Amino acid sequence: MTQGLTIHKGLEGVTVTDTELALVDGERGHLVYRGYWAKDLALQYTYEHVAYLLWFGKLPTDAELAEFHAKMAQYRILPDYLKTIIDAIPAGVDMMSVLRTAVSAVGNESYGWPPTVEQAMELTAKVPTIITYRHSRLNGRQPVEPREDLSHTANYLYMLFGKEPHPAHVAALDAYLVLTAEHGMNASTFSARVTTSTRSDMASAVTTAIGTMKGPLHGGAPSEVDETLAAIGTKENAEPYLRSLLERGERLMGFGHRVYKTRDPRAEALSIVAKRVAGDDPWLDLAVHVENVAIRLLEEYKPGRRLYTNVEFYAAAVLRAVGLPKELYTPTFSLSRMAGWTAHVLEQAADNRLIRPQSVYTGPMPR
Amino acid sequence: MTQGLTIHKGLEGVTVTDTELALVDGERGHLVYRGYWAKDLALQYTYEHVAYLLWFGKLPTDAELAEFHAKMAQYRILPDYLKTIIDAIPAGVDMMSVLRTAVSAVGNESYGWPPTVEQAMELTAKVPTIITYRHSRLNGRQPVEPREDLSHTANYLYMLFGKEPHPAHVAALDAYLVLTAEHGMNASTFSARVTTSTRSDMASAVTTAIGTMKGPLHGGAPSEVDETLAAIGTKENAEPYLRSLLERGERLMGFGHRVYKTRDPRAEALSIVAKRVAGDDPWLDLAVHVENVAIRLLEEYKPGRRLYTNVEFYAAAVLRAVGLPKELYTPTFSLSRMAGWTAHVLEQAADNRLIRPQSVYTGPMPR
Repeated sequence: MTQGLTIHKGLEGVTVTDTELALVDGERGHLVYRGYWAKDLALQYTYEHVAYLLWFGKLPTDAELAEFHAKMAQYRILPDYLKTIIDAIPAGVDMMSVLRTAVSAVGNESYGWPPTVEQAMELTAKVPTIITYRHSRLNGRQPVEPREDLSHTANYLYMLFGKEPHPAHVAALDAYLVLTAEHGMNASTFSARVTTSTRSDMASAVTTAIGTMKGPLHGGAPSEVDETLAAIGTKENAEPYLRSLLERGERLMGFGHRVYKTRDPRAEALSIVAKRVAGDDPWLDLAVHVENVAIRLLEEYKPGRRLYTNVEFYAAAVLRAVGLPKELYTPTFSLSRMAGWTAHVLEQAADNRLIRPQSVYTGPMPR
Repeated sequence: MTQGLTIHKGLEGVTVTDTELALVDGERGHLVYRGYWAKDLALQYTYEHVAYLLWFGKLPTDAELAEFHAKMAQYRILPDYLKTIIDAIPAGVDMMSVLRTAVSAVGNESYGWPPTVEQAMELTAKVPTIITYRHSRLNGRQPVEPREDLSHTANYLYMLFGKEPHPAHVAALDAYLVLTAEHGMNASTFSARVTTSTRSDMASAVTTAIGTMKGPLHGGAPSEVDETLAAIGTKENAEPYLRSLLERGERLMGFGHRVYKTRDPRAEALSIVAKRVAGDDPWLDLAVHVENVAIRLLEEYKPGRRLYTNVEFYAAAVLRAVGLPKELYTPTFSLSRMAGWTAHVLEQAADNRLIRPQSVYTGPMPR
């Protein structure tokens, strides 16, 4: 039927583009954004710095950052028509579907070809407001308007809880957002590039990416680890709990990664951040302790298996520490990936070729 | 930099899947849907038959079609919340963006994994109502509610113009919709399969496809040919007009195709339909005449170039004949492709593998 044709069903090992945005090297445990270790960026810079880096190719000066921040802050505000649309979506609809519809609804006649950094800024700035606006409405609370003086990350927490967030929480969430802002080629980023390749617009491409990230095979949102941390609850309970899991031959969620064969550099950075704010948040303290115990027990029960802490482990600790409700884990992962997605859209547009693969027909021929 | 890696930027020649849905063979001028010549389907069956064929793998019996039609007809109705959303989108927003947002807003908690034929039916049934509802509102007219007794195609024209359509127009538009319902792998269909591959849902995948089709490089909507036909206007004007174009070395829009090196089978079928309803519509009569003149002149001016009539040529004639406004050409192409997109989503889900290609980093390494 297929006449010896190779079918690349998952496109594994097929290189679709060069990119200046990120290097993901799992063997070496390397994650690089435009010439910087993602880990260093997470320990020294904010999400806004990193979005600027991904879009403009360099870190901003203080003056550039101030101007950039002011612009982004303006874009946070949702126009009334968008609020009407979000309010019209029935209450049972999950947040990823709401985000997909709302981001699509931001697109208008000004979103043409080529896509622009301004559009990347607008969409990235609006996503936290969309999520928190919807979340407040669902919970019968008056949505909190964005505050211009707060950073992207601090303002997200502020809008979510209606009060100024604890600096330790801002630091931890900011590190998480930086470390998940970009990760080379993956299904959602690739789908956004396919949409862009027809010379469609930035809003269409990001809408595509959100719809693709919605699927559970995409991965990246730390929902499963979260339950383990919650079940452990206290430091004293860590060793007996993990030991009993391992005795029963169960998997420890948050350890081991498809790509990274050493310690996930994102987990490493988040662990440093957690230790920095030690004493400020019990969940972060617990996570540091659980990691130490888990690594020791994994060496005891599964020697030589190279099972290291992955980003989901610390991501779960961070999201739980800042008080994020679980239904916002994947939407918050989308929020972080906005910078990466939109940077890929810009890169695709700068040297575009229509992405149109082939299929092979295996149905019957007409008689 | 790229260490000898082959980069498949447009994925040209890379086969991503087998499919039982369509064979597109441009060299031979073949277009097959699930074992039937698309041309035969267009001359003998309606869009509903063909959607059924694509989704269920066989043509329906009369009883199956009746049941299928009744179900589809129920799904045509828009819930009030969806009308609120469509009404909230600012007037200047183009119809493809409106369609993307509205289809996304149909998705709800019932759209999970795996995608279902019911969902394909619901989305396909709602698209004509979404388009005509929005179009009526923009033009200050009361939107026309769908009529259960009319076919998918007749009901679309009925909702658009508020009166029962001429049978010749229904026949011509139905043939167009059948012939563009599916076309193997292409950017929009592929993007829908990438979205599906993470186990995302049917609404997300179709939203992706609409966003991808929105780009002008996607092709398929006959906007350019339309202007040529309008400029010719009368049979007498055809030869002098086309001759002067060719004398000036200009391209004849509607002739020649990237894929088809013989006469496009879709153009062939539409030409037969146009001749069938000869005398019923002046634009279809004109198209038949213009084609004859153009083919004769192309042989005279560009002998041996194998420039045949493509589907855009007759598509423009059909869409103009039925009175479709130009801003609805691409949305109507989306309307037709709904059957194909959703069939590909179902096919992808039935034997799914995450689609995740690779990229190669060409940026600097950290110092």
